Amino acid sequence: MASLMLTDCSSSTTRLIPTNRTNGAFLPRRCIGQLRLSTTASSRAGCTLSISSSSSPSPAKVIDGKAEAKKITDQITIDVSRMKESIGVVPGLAVILVGDRKDSETYVTNKKLACKSVGIKSLEVLLPEDSSEEEVLKYVAAFNDDHSVHGILVQLPLPSHMNEQKILNAVSIEKDVDGFHPLNIGRLAMKGGEPLFVPCTPKGFIELLHRYNIEIEGKRVVVIGRSNIVGMPAALLLLKENATVSVIHSKTKNPEEITREADIIISAAGQPTMVRGSWIKPGAVVIDVGTTQVEDLSARSGYRLVGDVCYEEACKVASVITPVPGGVGPMTIAMLLSNTLTSAKRIHNFE
Amino acid sequence: MASLMLTDCSSSTTRLIPTNRTNGAFLPRRCIGQLRLSTTASSRAGCTLSISSSSSPSPAKVIDGKAEAKKITDQITIDVSRMKESIGVVPGLAVILVGDRKDSETYVTNKKLACKSVGIKSLEVLLPEDSSEEEVLKYVAAFNDDHSVHGILVQLPLPSHMNEQKILNAVSIEKDVDGFHPLNIGRLAMKGGEPLFVPCTPKGFIELLHRYNIEIEGKRVVVIGRSNIVGMPAALLLLKENATVSVIHSKTKNPEEITREADIIISAAGQPTMVRGSWIKPGAVVIDVGTTQVEDLSARSGYRLVGDVCYEEACKVASVITPVPGGVGPMTIAMLLSNTLTSAKRIHNFE
Repeated sequence: MASLMLTDCSSSTTRLIPTNRTNGAFLPRRCIGQLRLSTTASSRAGCTLSISSSSSPSPAKVIDGKAEAKKITDQITIDVSRMKESIGVVPGLAVILVGDRKDSETYVTNKKLACKSVGIKSLEVLLPEDSSEEEVLKYVAAFNDDHSVHGILVQLPLPSHMNEQKILNAVSIEKDVDGFHPLNIGRLAMKGGEPLFVPCTPKGFIELLHRYNIEIEGKRVVVIGRSNIVGMPAALLLLKENATVSVIHSKTKNPEEITREADIIISAAGQPTMVRGSWIKPGAVVIDVGTTQVEDLSARSGYRLVGDVCYEEACKVASVITPVPGGVGPMTIAMLLSNTLTSAKRIHNFE
Repeated sequence: MASLMLTDCSSSTTRLIPTNRTNGAFLPRRCIGQLRLSTTASSRAGCTLSISSSSSPSPAKVIDGKAEAKKITDQITIDVSRMKESIGVVPGLAVILVGDRKDSETYVTNKKLACKSVGIKSLEVLLPEDSSEEEVLKYVAAFNDDHSVHGILVQLPLPSHMNEQKILNAVSIEKDVDGFHPLNIGRLAMKGGEPLFVPCTPKGFIELLHRYNIEIEGKRVVVIGRSNIVGMPAALLLLKENATVSVIHSKTKNPEEITREADIIISAAGQPTMVRGSWIKPGAVVIDVGTTQVEDLSARSGYRLVGDVCYEEACKVASVITPVPGGVGPMTIAMLLSNTLTSAKRIHNFE
């Protein structure tokens, strides 16, 4: 068990204006106006955006996802180097990005940098928004056949004119490092099923829970959101961990009430600051998977990432919390690198 | 919308001795002693086995699964006949049964009779308990190649020395009328995924809920049990129906408390009379998927089927309930026939 650096949860505030990039322009969005889940009147008071500072210490311990991810990537670096020296193989990850969504571009850039930092070769195909499904499938097929590629990642979401399922289906299951191929998802769902890859974000936060010695078995876990990328595979993985799992979503009538029953909250709704302090049972563990870009003129990039959880309120109620950024995000990338290495090892039968 | 025949819920009692066939012998099991879920002391008082009679009318309406299944199979009979006349094709269902579990034998016999009643050709392979995995796979492969077979069903559970996943994986996805192939399960799990077949039991009770105009969207549904056959696919299907779904299982600490939160209870634990009246919120809908054979010397077969729900207590609390037998069971078989017909239609491009 790795030693842990737990920091106190604290807050300071800044203005929250989620960005909604349409036709290249940043449109300010109101935090509350975009909520898709039903919320009670009491939850609709404003929540300010918190960032770490040394003021207002509160009881919640903050999980340091960045530090845990670094331990994992350090080990990956060693393994990648050992593999290259032993059998002359460098793991390769191919990323296909269609369109110019700012958030997707950021993720892809981060993945590329992460590959570089551990010695994994990264290949990238950038296609315009109006590309055809066939063009994407052509690149998927090429990477399926490319022996230097051990992982293929199609950055989601794809433009709406494309059939996402068809494209994910085309990725060779042996190179499906995102774990989104329906065969991998099916195996994840089934008792006795053994997926070749587990989706990176759920795998990442489960790893965090394990590393922080947070018990999952028998705990009531509420997963907020049911996306193919996070919510749904998270629920399946948590069931495999013997949690009692509830999934809430846009059609749930009383999300606040149900969330308050949870020992562990996994929020993956993509709705900034939706989970208020009143949603959280005192002492609950809060895993914030949401990452929405909000405009922040004080930041060099002009935006910052904000989670689903009203951090400053949650800190006062939860026992443990993941921050955004620096919580689940770095672990997601570490798991992608780990899956790519695992794939290369499996393909080349390297221990 | 079909017209419905709702009968009052009523009860009389008999002794409950679940049968546990090991090495060919029936061992009596105590109802409470076999519970795998945690239960509170208050739930451990005895529950008697109820059967329909005209005494003690109570508020719950009883869903007539047999009548609904008949409507469906009547239509299948017409379609099968039309298909034969139009293109000379008779849908065929192949069943592989390994071992001599009494319950499996009963299910297979029922399936065979059901096929006959609608004009579907049924093929059956009975293999001894100690058959090898390769033998089963050989028959699966033969049925995959057999053009007269449109549906293949491997009766579960398989003997413990076999790799169930490997065998289910070998069934051609186009003939996977049970919907247990991991690719079908993966598609069931994914938003936008379109399984070729949906597992028969969950499909059957969802059909019952629809036919009885019971709203699912936004309702809190508790699924008891997480088996590959019922609980897990039921949870996935209910999520697609926009229910707020919680899954409880053997590691859940407070199943009674959580079940009591449900608007709709789906019990698929295989634990006779486990769900007591105190587990049910007044007015909830109770779908009892459990079917355990219990010894009943007054029955010609020497046993009877008992559900997960303490029927006589549940009737007094629930608004709607499915009986065992005569509830979900007949619908499961109707859905199997429906899936087989769908498969034959798809393979032969017949509308």
